[in-house]
Order: sequence, then structure tokens, then C-alpha cells
Amino acid sequence: MKKPSWVVDKERNRKAEAKETVWLFGLHAVRDALLNPRRARLRLIVTKNAFDRLEDAIAASGITPEIVDPRKFTAPIDEGSVHQGAALEVRPLDWGGLMDLAISGEGAPLLVLLDRVTDPHNVGAVLRSAEVFGARAVIAPRHHSAPETGALAKTASGALERQPYLRVANLAEAMEELKAAGYVLVGLDGAAEIPLAQALASTAGRPVGLVMGAEGPGLREKTRETCDLLARIPAAGAFGSLNVSNAAAVALYAAAAR
Amino acid sequence: MKKPSWVVDKERNRKAEAKETVWLFGLHAVRDALLNPRRARLRLIVTKNAFDRLEDAIAASGITPEIVDPRKFTAPIDEGSVHQGAALEVRPLDWGGLMDLAISGEGAPLLVLLDRVTDPHNVGAVLRSAEVFGARAVIAPRHHSAPETGALAKTASGALERQPYLRVANLAEAMEELKAAGYVLVGLDGAAEIPLAQALASTAGRPVGLVMGAEGPGLREKTRETCDLLARIPAAGAFGSLNVSNAAAVALYAAAAR
Repeated sequence: MKKPSWVVDKERNRKAEAKETVWLFGLHAVRDALLNPRRARLRLIVTKNAFDRLEDAIAASGITPEIVDPRKFTAPIDEGSVHQGAALEVRPLDWGGLMDLAISGEGAPLLVLLDRVTDPHNVGAVLRSAEVFGARAVIAPRHHSAPETGALAKTASGALERQPYLRVANLAEAMEELKAAGYVLVGLDGAAEIPLAQALASTAGRPVGLVMGAEGPGLREKTRETCDLLARIPAAGAFGSLNVSNAAAVALYAAAAR
Repeated sequence: MKKPSWVVDKERNRKAEAKETVWLFGLHAVRDALLNPRRARLRLIVTKNAFDRLEDAIAASGITPEIVDPRKFTAPIDEGSVHQGAALEVRPLDWGGLMDLAISGEGAPLLVLLDRVTDPHNVGAVLRSAEVFGARAVIAPRHHSAPETGALAKTASGALERQPYLRVANLAEAMEELKAAGYVLVGLDGAAEIPLAQALASTAGRPVGLVMGAEGPGLREKTRETCDLLARIPAAGAFGSLNVSNAAAVALYAAAAR
């Protein structure tokens, strides 16, 4: 029997994802990934100098490094990246399924959902804050979100190795699943009437998902409608708005302090 | 009578500062500076396309633009800067004296003090959050702090034109002056015993200065000693730390919500 087309598509996507690799760079990010037992590592390119500084981590990981001349550093990373003589090709981390993370993940039942945040520096900074405040995961749609890249890893400053970053096929469907599992979804929206602290007070004792949009467009209509309530971070003046990673840090702080 | 050397130094510094100029770039930053009546503007270089998009702001400012071919865009800004065909040379804004801002500045008596934060993106993001939460000023030492640059302006997303960013000769001396004027200075320090909310509760009704160090070194010893109290942002786990601009956003939110 011929497979239905959606099964073929799904299998094709799965194969494409399995082939996807990421080049991490910089001493800090490469060291963290070398020491992470969950990381599948493919190639390590280092200068002699970087090798000396990473020697223990390289030995612990068991990978055979390719030692290159600093003038011939050929890893396929963006020109201008501050690689410090170290680049590591890895597979994206497998964080398992949404419900496993949401229901039995580590830490308090607290999630961040990012609606089409495409800037890798913003997503990296959100991962970093999510780790500090003990969120179980950062969830984003597979498309129109910053992929796991070297630039994201650098901004995340180690958090990419430890903080689940899960990309799902459909954000609104994932939100419905989370609500069915008992999560209250609080959408951050500058035009909302309820201040953040008041919205969070009403969620006391329940698992919370903080839903953030990209700067400019904000939450998409479907995303906004799927939230249980909308809240704003109180601003003093008429001008300006918070950067998305700063808004996430504030919301995480407020939610963790409930 | 010969002038004492410190007077000569001071005069020399003042002259050097008067000559200091900044190149702002990008449609958003250039538009904000064209519309800011406090800005001294020197040269505007635009492509025809950028001119069309900025026409109203250019007319309002009264400056005569130099219209250039996009392939010959010659403004002295960093290679790789996303200039969108617009660059404007300006003088740094004159925000007046520390005490004028601290005592009679706009908004609530709330300040941010940055101890040697050199990354322009971090300082730009702090200015942006400071504006949102209505802080009177962001204060930093003149040396070893990010100067007012195009990159800082871009991250500040308009806030550089409106949010006072004051660099002082000596941060510890400025802190003593602020304390004498009635400010309570709360230093953010990951190793402090008191959680931020508790520290801020003890300052209820008093003007507050939030003192933040750079990532890595944190607060310098002299700065730490000059604070009235030290507080930490509570973290859930043992790993990671907040980026300085995220820590500032959290502290500003908590202080503004007192």
C-alpha cells in the first residue's frame, strides 16, 4: 500500500532534521558542548592555542580534533564571528516531546513560549534568563524562529546546553495541549489592561506559560486568542518598549516570585 | 599666575569633549535624532531612497543633506553596520549635571548606575529599559564605559535621544553625592544574602539608585563598599547568570513596582 502524502512529508522532515548540523564557535560554547553528554559531536576544528586551552574537555569528550593553522581556519561559520580558534560541529539537542517537558521537566512548572522571535541574540538571551529562573523549557514554532546556531549559543552563554529549547510544528496547537494539561497561558501584550503582577497573582498555584511576541508585530492574532489572559508590563511613560529578552526576564522574575 | 595642572587638564578634557562627535546610522536612529530639538547636528549623508523616507524629518531639522550614490556610501561608520542609507553626525547630548538630574529630573527618583559596562549593546538595552520604567538617568564612569555611539543608539531604539545617559569622572564620588542627597544605593550582586524584593521593600518611599556591575567582574570593590545595601536576584538553579541588561530590566521593574 502506498503511504499517504502526509506520512511521506513527515518522514522527509524527520530525515532532513537528522541531517541538520550546527557549528558552535568560541572557547566557552565549544567547551560547554564538549562536556555535555547529551551532545552528538561530529567535527572539532581548533588552532594549537585553542587546543591547549580546551585540552581537558577534548580528552573528556573523546573527539579527535583537527588542528589547523590560525591563518587557515576554515570552519563554515559567519565571517566576523569571534571564534577564538575553536569550532565544533554538533547535532541539535534532542529535548524529547512537549508534554514530557511540560509535565515532568525539571524545575517549577514554568514555560516561555516565543511567537516568531527570529533574532538569535534575543532567543539566546531568553534561554539564559529561562535557565536562571528555572523554567522547564522555551518553546517556539519550528518555522520563523531563530534556529539553534553558533550566534544563539554564544548569547545563551552556556544555557543552550542545559535549557530545553523546543521547536514545535504548530504553536497554537501546542498551546491547546498545554492548557489541556493544566497550564495557564499568560500573553504579554503592551495594550493589555491587566498589569503583569495582577495577572500572575490570579494564577497562584497553577503551572504558567509566558507567551511573548516578536518586537514590532507582537503576538499573532491566533496566538493572542489562544492565551488564557493578556497582561502588560507597566510602563512609566508614553515612549519606548522593552526589548523582547528584557520583557522575558521581567516576566520570568515575576512568575518565579509568585 | 600659572594655572594649576588640574585646571589645565580639566580645560583640555572639556575642549576634547566639545570636539567629540558621533555618527548615528539607520533610519530609526537618524529620524529620532533629526526630530530631537536638543541634538546638535553636523552632517547628514543619505541615499536618495533614505532621503525620500526621511524627508519630513530632514525638513523639520533644517539640515542640508548630502545625497550620495548607494554604492559610494562613505560615512565613517563600522563596516557591516546596517545603515539603511542614512548616517548623521551629531554631538553627544548635554544632559547637565548629576545633581540637577538626580534631584529635579523627570519621573520617579530612580537611577541606574553602571560600573564599567563597556558593551554598547548592553548599555543601549539598559537605556531602553530605563526609559520604559521611568528612571531619571543612567550614570556611568566616563572611562571604561560604552561611549555614545551609533551601535549603542541602535540598540537603545530611540531611547538615547530621550533617556539621560550621564558619564561622570568618578563613580564612587558620584555615589557619595547621591547618598548625601537622600538616595539609597542598592548594589546588585549574585553573592548577596538579601533578595532584591526584600532590599527594595526596605527602601520604600526613598529615592533609589540601582548599581550594576559588568558581566564577569561584577561590582568593583570600591563601588560595592559605597552601596548602602547589596541584593541578589533570586535564581532557581546553580547554573548561569543574567545578562546585565536583563538584570537591569528586572531590577527596574521591581523598583518601579514598589
